[in-house]
Amino acid sequence: MSNNLLKGKKGIIFGALNDQSIAWKVAQKVVAEGATITLTNAPVSMRMGAIKQLGQELNAEVIAADATNLEDLNNLFTKSMEILGGKVDFVLHSIGMSLNVRKGKPYTDVNYEWMKQTFDISAISFHKMMQTMLKLDAINDHGSILALTYIAAQRVFPDYNEMAESKALLESFARSFGYHYGVNKKVRVNTISQSPTWTTAGSGVKGFQEFFDYSAKMSPLGNASAEACADYCAVMFSDLTRYVTMQNLFHDGGFSTMGMNPSILNK
Amino acid sequence: MSNNLLKGKKGIIFGALNDQSIAWKVAQKVVAEGATITLTNAPVSMRMGAIKQLGQELNAEVIAADATNLEDLNNLFTKSMEILGGKVDFVLHSIGMSLNVRKGKPYTDVNYEWMKQTFDISAISFHKMMQTMLKLDAINDHGSILALTYIAAQRVFPDYNEMAESKALLESFARSFGYHYGVNKKVRVNTISQSPTWTTAGSGVKGFQEFFDYSAKMSPLGNASAEACADYCAVMFSDLTRYVTMQNLFHDGGFSTMGMNPSILNK
Amino acid sequence: MSNNLLKGKKGIIFGALNDQSIAWKVAQKVVAEGATITLTNAPVSMRMGAIKQLGQELNAEVIAADATNLEDLNNLFTKSMEILGGKVDFVLHSIGMSLNVRKGKPYTDVNYEWMKQTFDISAISFHKMMQTMLKLDAINDHGSILALTYIAAQRVFPDYNEMAESKALLESFARSFGYHYGVNKKVRVNTISQSPTWTTAGSGVKGFQEFFDYSAKMSPLGNASAEACADYCAVMFSDLTRYVTMQNLFHDGGFSTMGMNPSILNK
Amino acid sequence: MSNNLLKGKKGIIFGALNDQSIAWKVAQKVVAEGATITLTNAPVSMRMGAIKQLGQELNAEVIAADATNLEDLNNLFTKSMEILGGKVDFVLHSIGMSLNVRKGKPYTDVNYEWMKQTFDISAISFHKMMQTMLKLDAINDHGSILALTYIAAQRVFPDYNEMAESKALLESFARSFGYHYGVNKKVRVNTISQSPTWTTAGSGVKGFQEFFDYSAKMSPLGNASAEACADYCAVMFSDLTRYVTMQNLFHDGGFSTMGMNPSILNK
Repeated sequence: MSNNLLKGKKGIIFGALNDQSIAWKVAQKVVAEGATITLTNAPVSMRMGAIKQLGQELNAEVIAADATNLEDLNNLFTKSMEILGGKVDFVLHSIGMSLNVRKGKPYTDVNYEWMKQTFDISAISFHKMMQTMLKLDAINDHGSILALTYIAAQRVFPDYNEMAESKALLESFARSFGYHYGVNKKVRVNTISQSPTWTTAGSGVKGFQEFFDYSAKMSPLGNASAEACADYCAVMFSDLTRYVTMQNLFHDGGFSTMGMNPSILNK
Repeated sequence: MSNNLLKGKKGIIFGALNDQSIAWKVAQKVVAEGATITLTNAPVSMRMGAIKQLGQELNAEVIAADATNLEDLNNLFTKSMEILGGKVDFVLHSIGMSLNVRKGKPYTDVNYEWMKQTFDISAISFHKMMQTMLKLDAINDHGSILALTYIAAQRVFPDYNEMAESKALLESFARSFGYHYGVNKKVRVNTISQSPTWTTAGSGVKGFQEFFDYSAKMSPLGNASAEACADYCAVMFSDLTRYVTMQNLFHDGGFSTMGMNPSILNK
Repeated sequence: MSNNLLKGKKGIIFGALNDQSIAWKVAQKVVAEGATITLTNAPVSMRMGAIKQLGQELNAEVIAADATNLEDLNNLFTKSMEILGGKVDFVLHSIGMSLNVRKGKPYTDVNYEWMKQTFDISAISFHKMMQTMLKLDAINDHGSILALTYIAAQRVFPDYNEMAESKALLESFARSFGYHYGVNKKVRVNTISQSPTWTTAGSGVKGFQEFFDYSAKMSPLGNASAEACADYCAVMFSDLTRYVTMQNLFHDGGFSTMGMNPSILNK
Repeated sequence: MSNNLLKGKKGIIFGALNDQSIAWKVAQKVVAEGATITLTNAPVSMRMGAIKQLGQELNAEVIAADATNLEDLNNLFTKSMEILGGKVDFVLHSIGMSLNVRKGKPYTDVNYEWMKQTFDISAISFHKMMQTMLKLDAINDHGSILALTYIAAQRVFPDYNEMAESKALLESFARSFGYHYGVNKKVRVNTISQSPTWTTAGSGVKGFQEFFDYSAKMSPLGNASAEACADYCAVMFSDLTRYVTMQNLFHDGGFSTMGMNPSILNK
């Protein structure tokens, strides 16, 4: 079903790995709503994943780009504008990876070089993306930029490790750059703080199943799915939300507002 | 322009006084998006305003109801279901009035009987509305309930007087009832925290023009208009935002996230 | 042990019922730290409790006052100034009671007259207290006003019922009045958001034991005790915290910042 | 004047450059309250500043340490325990420096290597400090760790540049490590969000005077001074605040809670 919410709009979707990815669902949804897009992911992720298949399905060009690399980003936006025939209207940043988590280092014994790489990949890439776009004047007035985040930026989930700091950083970039992009181009920048989601990234976290179930029980509406997140991204890219900016928007079935859910005690 | 976002949906809009009212714009927008609605306001407001004209324009029945009166609310929901042919899918609460402000009492010399009436009109009415709807089973699963609020619930705007407390109360009702409605009926409850808006209610506050300009300068995107707020309400009523609940959503051009805007200093 | 933190200071403590009360511990602590005080509670609470005994222990006069009654408040502050020999330096508001909880009404079926009385007792009394003090010029410059609150003002704890709204209201009064008292008299106004505590009031809430244990497990330092809360109140009344105002201060062993504590899952 | 609040306690103070530094005032205050301490700063800052003079005044050993260097930190804590005769009870982190600000790069044209160095110096150093202390078991049970921060972590102050992200990161480290240190050692970790302060660091920011005045006008109690901040740090190091953890504590004369102060409009 489509409401033509994004008819005539152009966009770029970062981070679609496979059909579990939220970015994958977002790509499908925005195209269904009338947008034309390019897809991008890191070369290594492209080899592991199935993004080309998605590109074919959606008739969207796939452009490899390491989001920590300024030249790659420059190339990505330049090419996307060529392919799409002009500036873009929206961008999704859905990138996150923790080296310390992947290598099994606990939060109280992290490797600091890995931590800095984690921040570069998961958060600074968002600033790099926006700085590059601003320099290239790559987004139309009233455009919309989104990044996906998690409530660990506000509250402690011990197994989330240094991703908590990555998300705190990411959300701060959204606020700061949201000011600059707002006054310069009327562009809005927001983050969506999504329920834990069964993706390749999410399920790599220790004890994810247990945690996923806890979160579902705590949330009055249950965990939000990747599909529901794609719906929410579509409205945030549409012209119906032009004055929402510099916000962190919880899309979590109410989890963030619960103090205690009796269903947790009755398990 | 319409995206048929609310095709087949039924709703009730509280608080449309005249064509400056946000509720007026919301009513027009949701009908444009395919909904059928009833309109309601307090008898005294109906006499002052032009709601009947809006009813004719939108082919919507107007039902008088004092939102502090449980019988009136009972009648409103019962009749609305009859007229609309079943349970509703969405409701907007856009009601606020301060007796102490109206009568010129400063915040440090309030009349407490008026304060309680203010709370009853501006906030408790929201609980009454939801309690009545729950008893009548008047809303469909996955329905959406919204109330309009203001950032004075979080930060101090001295001239806003006891409306600050009214809004704090209103937002707390949204959270608490959001839990109950969520677990029982998958219904979501949210508040939209809107920029200062040129309405009959808003412009009654002391020094409103000066304040309106300050807010516009502070906000990277400027103040959000009533029309933009109506757009946002429409997406919050649509099926694209089903997992957003118990949230206070700032629709304010970025005001809430600004610490200092240089344009304030340079005036 | 004493640090003479409040040497020469005068204060008023509302709400000491019996030796489980936080206000009881605060009274003992502030006197140990060198303050002279008066004690007050509602006539009905005085009959039930043991406040006179505390008065004798601390050499503090006990003045009956219904905190919802302006005449009683006027009398309380006037008499306190006579007894203490001048304006006061600090006041503690520790008052809360829900009629709907007491009478077993669920949150979705409240009696609205009782709700208004609950708000009057638990929250509006705080405004009345401050408005009366301001009119009588009853507090010294750089004085400190505190009220005790709970995190249900921000997040949902279903069994807390309408006390959630009472606390949201209370905290809003602290912010709003904090502005007025700050600019007029350099007086600061804050709320302390305390762990669930074994008091006569706390333990009256449904399922309190289960909830108390949950909160202790969730909090990295466990629940804060009434004694620890009294320590914190003492520093907030001292001259060492003169620039903290209009804040809600969590005194909860870290509960408020936890997203998930693994010890909850492993129970 | 002293209350012997820290009698018998041992501590380490990072970041005292000269007598304008907040850390300088904190060092003086904690010693006045009965603590024995060591002082530390980066070698380069020690050459620029006057820390040795402070060491003599307070009879405190000065140990050079680059807070981004794990060996230096290891040496600092080891030597401090030798000198102080055992584990410490409290630590203050007061370190912040932005390379992009210093080199005049605007936020939308940052150098990313400098950004990473900024984060390392201003935020990751806090994690390094705590990780090193935990490994060395260098802090007593119920110890207290503080870092100084600024409200740019929550709201946008455009001239603050990448320090906004540094502070967001710093505060996230406090929360995350606060959990681990809490469950392991009952140690609490908090940040104090201080008013803009006339220090060598603060006054280096562009347009600082104008901004300082704006902040003072906006705050009902005016800007908090470095001396007042030292007082607040002392109470947070004392045993009277043992259950406050993982909090960001605003010490700002009410700035953080103001939406609009009429005195801004009347300038």
